[in-house]
Amino acid sequence: MKKDAGTSDKNFDLAAYLDSRVKMINQALDAFLPKATVKPSTIHKAMRYSLFAGGKRLRPVLCLAAAAACGGEEREALAPACAVECVHTYSLIHDDLPAMDNDDFRRGKPTNHKVFGEGIAILAGDGLLTQAFEILAQSRGWPRYPHKTLVMELAKAAGSLWLVAGQVADLEGEGRKLNLHQLRYIHERKTSALLCCAVRLGGMSANCSPAQLDALTDFGYHVGLAFQVIDDILDVTQTSEKLGKTAGKDAKAQKATYPAIVGLERSRRIAAKLTHKAYAALRPFKGRAQALEALADYLLKREN
Amino acid sequence: MKKDAGTSDKNFDLAAYLDSRVKMINQALDAFLPKATVKPSTIHKAMRYSLFAGGKRLRPVLCLAAAAACGGEEREALAPACAVECVHTYSLIHDDLPAMDNDDFRRGKPTNHKVFGEGIAILAGDGLLTQAFEILAQSRGWPRYPHKTLVMELAKAAGSLWLVAGQVADLEGEGRKLNLHQLRYIHERKTSALLCCAVRLGGMSANCSPAQLDALTDFGYHVGLAFQVIDDILDVTQTSEKLGKTAGKDAKAQKATYPAIVGLERSRRIAAKLTHKAYAALRPFKGRAQALEALADYLLKREN
Repeated sequence: MKKDAGTSDKNFDLAAYLDSRVKMINQALDAFLPKATVKPSTIHKAMRYSLFAGGKRLRPVLCLAAAAACGGEEREALAPACAVECVHTYSLIHDDLPAMDNDDFRRGKPTNHKVFGEGIAILAGDGLLTQAFEILAQSRGWPRYPHKTLVMELAKAAGSLWLVAGQVADLEGEGRKLNLHQLRYIHERKTSALLCCAVRLGGMSANCSPAQLDALTDFGYHVGLAFQVIDDILDVTQTSEKLGKTAGKDAKAQKATYPAIVGLERSRRIAAKLTHKAYAALRPFKGRAQALEALADYLLKREN
Repeated sequence: MKKDAGTSDKNFDLAAYLDSRVKMINQALDAFLPKATVKPSTIHKAMRYSLFAGGKRLRPVLCLAAAAACGGEEREALAPACAVECVHTYSLIHDDLPAMDNDDFRRGKPTNHKVFGEGIAILAGDGLLTQAFEILAQSRGWPRYPHKTLVMELAKAAGSLWLVAGQVADLEGEGRKLNLHQLRYIHERKTSALLCCAVRLGGMSANCSPAQLDALTDFGYHVGLAFQVIDDILDVTQTSEKLGKTAGKDAKAQKATYPAIVGLERSRRIAAKLTHKAYAALRPFKGRAQALEALADYLLKREN
C-alpha cells in the first residue's frame, strides 16, 4: 500500500487512536507518580496538577507510535513515553515561572506557580525531572539498548546542550533581533530535541535496527521543528481561549518567532516543508508508520 | 587492629586523604561537565560557578571511601560520586533562590542567582540535575547492581519522597513551631537521603555484599543526621565569615533547628550520639573503613 509522502492514510482513525493511547498513557502516568495523598502532599498535588492539566500527550503518543512502527509492543514503550512526558511537563512549569516567561495560564488553567507559589512550582519541576529518570529506569532494556543507553539518551536531550540550552537561548534572545538561523537554533533545542528523543526511545523500546533509529531521528527532528513553527504561527493567529494560553504573548514580549522574522505565509510554507520532510523520513517503515504519519499530519493542521 | 567505636584511627592522615580525593573528584567533575566555553556558555559558566565554588566534596569523598571500605577501586566510584555532587549542587542553587531560602551568599561567594539572575540559576540547577544522570549512566555496572539499580537509587534519593520532600517540608515549616519529630523528618530527607545514597552508590560500585550495603545505609543515615544537627549548631555559634554563608539565618527566619527546639547542649549530645551510631555501623568493615571513620570524626568536630 505505497503512497505519496505528504499525505497520511485517510482510513486511519486518528481520533480513536489518540483517545485510546492518551488513556493508556494517563493510566501509566497515574501509576508511576506518587498519589496526591502521599506526604508531603503539596508536592505530589503540584506535580500532578501540571502533569494532568490536559496536555495533548504528543511526545508519549509519538513514542508509542515509533515503537509500533518498528514492529514492537507499544506497552514496552510506556515507561520511556511517561518519562519524556514528565521531562516535558517539568520544563513547562519552570518555563512559566516569573523569572522565565512569566506566564499565568497554560492549557486554559492557571500555571503551577499561580496555584502553588513559586517555591513549590520550582520543586514540582525538580520532582518531575527526577521522577522521569526513575520511570525510565523501569523500562525494558535490550542488549542493544541497555538502561545505560536509555538514560544517556534522555539526559542528553533534556540537558544543558539541548532542552536547557534552548531555554537559555530563548531567555537570552528576548527583546533581541534574531535571524532565522538563531531562531532555528532555539527551536531545535527547545522542541526538537525532546520530541526526537521520544521517538528514538520508542524505537529503542522495540529493539529497532540502527537504520530504523536513523529514520526515527530524521522524523523526530523535522516534526519537532514543524511543531514549533506552527506554535509560533498559532500564537499570532489564534485567540487565548482557543490556545488555552495567553495568545500574542510572543509578539508582546518581542520574542523572535517565524512569523515575526519571515512573515505568516512563508512560515506556513516552512512548516509544510518540514512536515513533508518528516513524512519522507518514514518511507523505510512502509505500512507500519500509519500512526506516525497521521500524527505528523494532525500537527500541521492543528489549531491549538 | 580492633578499636573502640567512637574514636577514629589517630594515624590516619585525613588532611592528606581529603586533599588527594578532592583533587581527584574535581578533575573528574571538570571532565564530566561541558567546558564553560561550550554554547550556550552562560549556562555552563553558571553550572560550573556553583559546582566549583569550593564545596567540601563531602558526599563524593564518602562515596569513594565507601567503595574502598568494601574492597573496591575508588576510581570505579568516581562517576556516582560526581553524580551525587551534581545533585547536591543543584539542590543548593534552587534552595538559595528568592522563592525558597532567599540566600545571598553560599561558601563565601554570591549565590548563583545573585551572579547570573534567577532564570539562569533555575536552569543551571536543572542542567546539573540532568547532568547527574548522564554521569551516573557512565558508571561501571555490576550484574548485582546494574545501571537500572543505580539510576533508581539516585532518582529515589533526589526525588519527591526524599530530597525534594525535605525542601518542601522545610519551606512549609518556616515560621511554624515544629517538634523534634517533625524536624528529624526534614533532616532525614534534606540531608540524610542523599548522603546515604552517596555511600550506598560507593558500595555498589565496589560490588558490595548485601550485608555491606546494609551497614553503609546505617552509616550514611546517621552521619547525615549528625551532619545536619551540627549545621544547625554552627548556624548559631559561628560567624558568617567562618561559615561562608549568612550565619544566624535560621533563627532570623524562625526556622526550626535542633538548638531552637532542645537547646545547644542537648543538640551537641544528639550530634555526638548520632556520630557514635555511625561509627558502630562501620564495625563489619574492620580495618578497611579508616577513611569513613575519620570523615565521621571530622564532621562532628568541624567548625564550618
